[in-house]
Amino acid sequence: MIRFNNDYSHGAHPKVLEALARTNEESYGGYGQDVWCEKAAAVIKKHLNCPQADIHFLVGGTQANFTVIASALRPYQSVLSADTGHINVHETGAVENCGHKVQTLPAVNGKISAAQIREEAELYRTSDIPEHITQPKMVYISHPTEYGTIYSRKELEEISAVCREYGLYLFVDGARMGYGLGASGADVTLEDFARLTDVFYIGGTKCGALFGEAVVIVNPLLQTDFRSYMKQNGAMLAKGWLLGLQFCALFENDLYFEITKKAVEYAMEIRRAFAEKGIPAYIESDTNQQFVILENRQMETLAKNYVFEFEKKIDDTHSCVRFCTSWSTKPEEIRALTEDIRRL
Amino acid sequence: MIRFNNDYSHGAHPKVLEALARTNEESYGGYGQDVWCEKAAAVIKKHLNCPQADIHFLVGGTQANFTVIASALRPYQSVLSADTGHINVHETGAVENCGHKVQTLPAVNGKISAAQIREEAELYRTSDIPEHITQPKMVYISHPTEYGTIYSRKELEEISAVCREYGLYLFVDGARMGYGLGASGADVTLEDFARLTDVFYIGGTKCGALFGEAVVIVNPLLQTDFRSYMKQNGAMLAKGWLLGLQFCALFENDLYFEITKKAVEYAMEIRRAFAEKGIPAYIESDTNQQFVILENRQMETLAKNYVFEFEKKIDDTHSCVRFCTSWSTKPEEIRALTEDIRRL
Amino acid sequence: MIRFNNDYSHGAHPKVLEALARTNEESYGGYGQDVWCEKAAAVIKKHLNCPQADIHFLVGGTQANFTVIASALRPYQSVLSADTGHINVHETGAVENCGHKVQTLPAVNGKISAAQIREEAELYRTSDIPEHITQPKMVYISHPTEYGTIYSRKELEEISAVCREYGLYLFVDGARMGYGLGASGADVTLEDFARLTDVFYIGGTKCGALFGEAVVIVNPLLQTDFRSYMKQNGAMLAKGWLLGLQFCALFENDLYFEITKKAVEYAMEIRRAFAEKGIPAYIESDTNQQFVILENRQMETLAKNYVFEFEKKIDDTHSCVRFCTSWSTKPEEIRALTEDIRRL
Amino acid sequence: MIRFNNDYSHGAHPKVLEALARTNEESYGGYGQDVWCEKAAAVIKKHLNCPQADIHFLVGGTQANFTVIASALRPYQSVLSADTGHINVHETGAVENCGHKVQTLPAVNGKISAAQIREEAELYRTSDIPEHITQPKMVYISHPTEYGTIYSRKELEEISAVCREYGLYLFVDGARMGYGLGASGADVTLEDFARLTDVFYIGGTKCGALFGEAVVIVNPLLQTDFRSYMKQNGAMLAKGWLLGLQFCALFENDLYFEITKKAVEYAMEIRRAFAEKGIPAYIESDTNQQFVILENRQMETLAKNYVFEFEKKIDDTHSCVRFCTSWSTKPEEIRALTEDIRRL
Repeated sequence: MIRFNNDYSHGAHPKVLEALARTNEESYGGYGQDVWCEKAAAVIKKHLNCPQADIHFLVGGTQANFTVIASALRPYQSVLSADTGHINVHETGAVENCGHKVQTLPAVNGKISAAQIREEAELYRTSDIPEHITQPKMVYISHPTEYGTIYSRKELEEISAVCREYGLYLFVDGARMGYGLGASGADVTLEDFARLTDVFYIGGTKCGALFGEAVVIVNPLLQTDFRSYMKQNGAMLAKGWLLGLQFCALFENDLYFEITKKAVEYAMEIRRAFAEKGIPAYIESDTNQQFVILENRQMETLAKNYVFEFEKKIDDTHSCVRFCTSWSTKPEEIRALTEDIRRL
Repeated sequence: MIRFNNDYSHGAHPKVLEALARTNEESYGGYGQDVWCEKAAAVIKKHLNCPQADIHFLVGGTQANFTVIASALRPYQSVLSADTGHINVHETGAVENCGHKVQTLPAVNGKISAAQIREEAELYRTSDIPEHITQPKMVYISHPTEYGTIYSRKELEEISAVCREYGLYLFVDGARMGYGLGASGADVTLEDFARLTDVFYIGGTKCGALFGEAVVIVNPLLQTDFRSYMKQNGAMLAKGWLLGLQFCALFENDLYFEITKKAVEYAMEIRRAFAEKGIPAYIESDTNQQFVILENRQMETLAKNYVFEFEKKIDDTHSCVRFCTSWSTKPEEIRALTEDIRRL
Repeated sequence: MIRFNNDYSHGAHPKVLEALARTNEESYGGYGQDVWCEKAAAVIKKHLNCPQADIHFLVGGTQANFTVIASALRPYQSVLSADTGHINVHETGAVENCGHKVQTLPAVNGKISAAQIREEAELYRTSDIPEHITQPKMVYISHPTEYGTIYSRKELEEISAVCREYGLYLFVDGARMGYGLGASGADVTLEDFARLTDVFYIGGTKCGALFGEAVVIVNPLLQTDFRSYMKQNGAMLAKGWLLGLQFCALFENDLYFEITKKAVEYAMEIRRAFAEKGIPAYIESDTNQQFVILENRQMETLAKNYVFEFEKKIDDTHSCVRFCTSWSTKPEEIRALTEDIRRL
Repeated sequence: MIRFNNDYSHGAHPKVLEALARTNEESYGGYGQDVWCEKAAAVIKKHLNCPQADIHFLVGGTQANFTVIASALRPYQSVLSADTGHINVHETGAVENCGHKVQTLPAVNGKISAAQIREEAELYRTSDIPEHITQPKMVYISHPTEYGTIYSRKELEEISAVCREYGLYLFVDGARMGYGLGASGADVTLEDFARLTDVFYIGGTKCGALFGEAVVIVNPLLQTDFRSYMKQNGAMLAKGWLLGLQFCALFENDLYFEITKKAVEYAMEIRRAFAEKGIPAYIESDTNQQFVILENRQMETLAKNYVFEFEKKIDDTHSCVRFCTSWSTKPEEIRALTEDIRRL
């Protein structure tokens, strides 16, 4: 069985593992105060053009999401999110567990727009009874989204502008950031995120690391005592250098960008194979996640050799499924899949 | 100016105030452990046919809502609510502040259905990844709803049945309970609520008391240590007898039912006056809240003599507004308003 | 039986009740935005010499405590309190329920000192690992304390100075404020509290009102959106004018000061009676609460005619008990008690 | 410089790293549902004699502590802990952030006793006003404690008995479990913990793993939906097999027991060296942490070649410091240190 079900089913890129092996005999200070975290922050910052950014290394995506949100909001403030946003649907109410409402906006292809944000912010601003409703204070978007789509630079600039106009923090969940930066039509860079957001993260878990997310805090207001929030939320790894080390391995020589771009190319091969076969996309995605609508018969045929994710029933004879490539996908796996698609 | 803007703009029914005056020289034990709370519980229980119910007196509706929900749910559990539900839109995220997601269902006329509840419960039951999503564990409905509509006995029985099938608690916000029981077409009684729900409350604040809500806990699982939740949430009035006393005054001789029924009759006069004038209802309501769509010109005319609540803009020339009667509405106020409606 | 067990066992001062009766036919805007709350704030402000203060009316003490603390602290910040402080021992963990640690200091006669506060603040300031410990950010004191003792102006000035030096908010729980201001040796005034604290409250529940606490927010940082915190925590009474009205009745003509001073005088009579009898005070108190150490035999004798509060066992033959006077105490009750003490 | 400052300054035991390298090419299901977690649970269970236990793998100690406590307690319930307990002093109020009071008991040598627990439980049981205080519902102890001391089997049996008598959950923080099991005078086994507690964990981070704690849930009441708590609290590692794999490597062939026992033997050599030199222990510890009282001059001398942890000032010329051995300590490091101690 070949796994296309997600992008976190393999260990780490060999260079990451090598780094762990190479340093295993060394000893370091704990809790992220070590030379590797310093180096990793420095090498990431080269891409940001943002010397004042703070960079912290957390273990996973849900943890990064709720720790950042808890650090930014007061109890009566809410976070705006696409209704399809990860924090709204797949984190077991972690944000609410921190006391905050996730205020949802109907997504189009997994994305929300500056206009939708403006409307919500305006509703609060003009409310006669603001103390009876939650105050939207942060916008959460995923890039790429949960459906593999990406924001254009123009869309991000518009969203950022409306956030700044209304005093909302902009937070970008970059669990799959590499695949977004390497997307076929992508025109946004890490520098753009540092310029346009208040806080975002660069995902490692799904992009070549064993685990780890690099949280970049641009807005000084959100930098204060962030390490206290990390510790309080169990998000400060005792052997923090393990995180810095992995990000060093990924960002030195731009390995991160290279391996995720390759994964997107593989995904485009899958996309083309489906398209040529006349199998429709559920949502057109330029990144490593491909959502297609299969006849159930086709689904059963492919399920003999491949693991992929069932998303939902479309009708009695069709289903939406997801195929995911990743940094660990091999060319022969793509060859096999695309041939089997053609044979359907 | 005559106020029809809400049902909490006057003090208390004279009999309630008399009771306070009559007992002011007496002394009582604190925190709801006194003879008046006992008596009030006893007189309310006569209407319930439910000797094992626990009755607690809280100060207000938001407080009752979040205290009950906090006492019932574990951190990963959510409460299902109409998207128009008070806990979702007008309580400043109080439920989320207690750590719980309000999982919304699209309301029809302010109401949700057994079928909608079943669908959500079934989604959780059949999920492959239940630990990634919140568990719906309670259903919150308002009776009457925020739009003045009421559930029929049949609808409540269906909702109750699906809740019991899936192990969900059913919680009824009865902030306006009196107006629901006294609604023109109402076929539900307090006994029905005791039979069909796990916990509900009988609103005093909007129904003749200075303040106060009688929370009736039917399900023994929810009775355990409820007073601890009250104290922890600031919901245990030091001079608790003030609450018991008011409910005694309201429930002895069925004053509660009588004054709210009268308020509904007044509301029906308003409804008829609008209907005869050809002014459409926004939602057909059988209770004390009447939502109508006025031309802006009509709105301005009525605003000269009456205070009513602007709800929202319908289009450039029309608005939805709310007229509310209450136990304190006077016949001459209704006469004046209905005449002015006819003159529009 | 005559009640000396607490200071919240009677309704309200007759003038408060009269105010409620007089205005019962009137109608007002809801949620504390009405003419009586405005007037009450104005009349209280006359005593503060602090025009920029914000005044809000909440229903009870526990509610006031946790709402203020929740509004002031970030999740990793803690509140310093005497270990005997009400928030630490008698509010069912309400502060922790809001997510904050109550960091205790050993009390001397119910009080804490500037030196103790400095020590804790200094521990945090000089910590090598501040992110592993909570940050003390607020100091909570009660005036009078839970043992009836009071802070001198000098003590308050010292505490205030150390709080300002270390950036800690100073919060005074004034549930029994009247009895503190009226204490025999008292040299502090409301103006002192406005000058020296960031936020404090003036208790109504125990000082002549049916219920209600006037929260005075001096520090502009703590004023922002406080009404949102009130609503979220169920601390915004629908008929808010009931609170303003009561405080108007209490503060017009200085009734508040007069009735609490009288209660303290009565307490001093009890104190003298015990002292003359050779019955030792558990703690010397200049306010309405008197803690004495009775022989169990004496306790049983007094218990025949009086209700008082058992505090704790001292040894096999002695117990600490509390006698409380209040605004509702009558001269004949004091006469009876002091005579019975002499007869012991 | 040789590090004796803590037990988490090196990567992992070589066999753990080998396991990661060996499996890096494989692919697995996510979130702890994989063959390695299954195997690890099975191999650990062999030591427990408790087939019905549930075993979950979390990333770190603070995370394990608050996730377990949050899963066990209702909002008004508190956890009893030594005042020196890790959850009370070094986790940034993580437990309070989940809404629960840490109710402290004065520790003796880092430990608390059954008698102390009984006293607190009895206070609640016999309280006249239980709803005004938090309900102790869980006991948290560390084994070994934060001062390196250990509980005897008899002490644990007494604590367990009083917990069961009063319906308290017993939770053991075993972040350093290996060093406790391998302590010189230890008479407790993993089987004892499974027999006597409701939930405990076996620390990996400090005992040979890169990271990871194996939480053993014995009480079925605490097993329900624990994975939901994990996900909600960011404690469910995406690549969960990394945790199972490490515990397999540690528990196959009893490596875990062997390497921690060796570390304790090294610690005993340090202890003897100090004792022979007449340098007093701050607390007598039979495990890998040694706390001694050095003259400041001695401290400075040793600080030239060794990193160790300053704990606190004892007086103007003496300090308490900690020397920690671990699975990664080398014989030549011990030789060097003990010689340098002798030379002091």
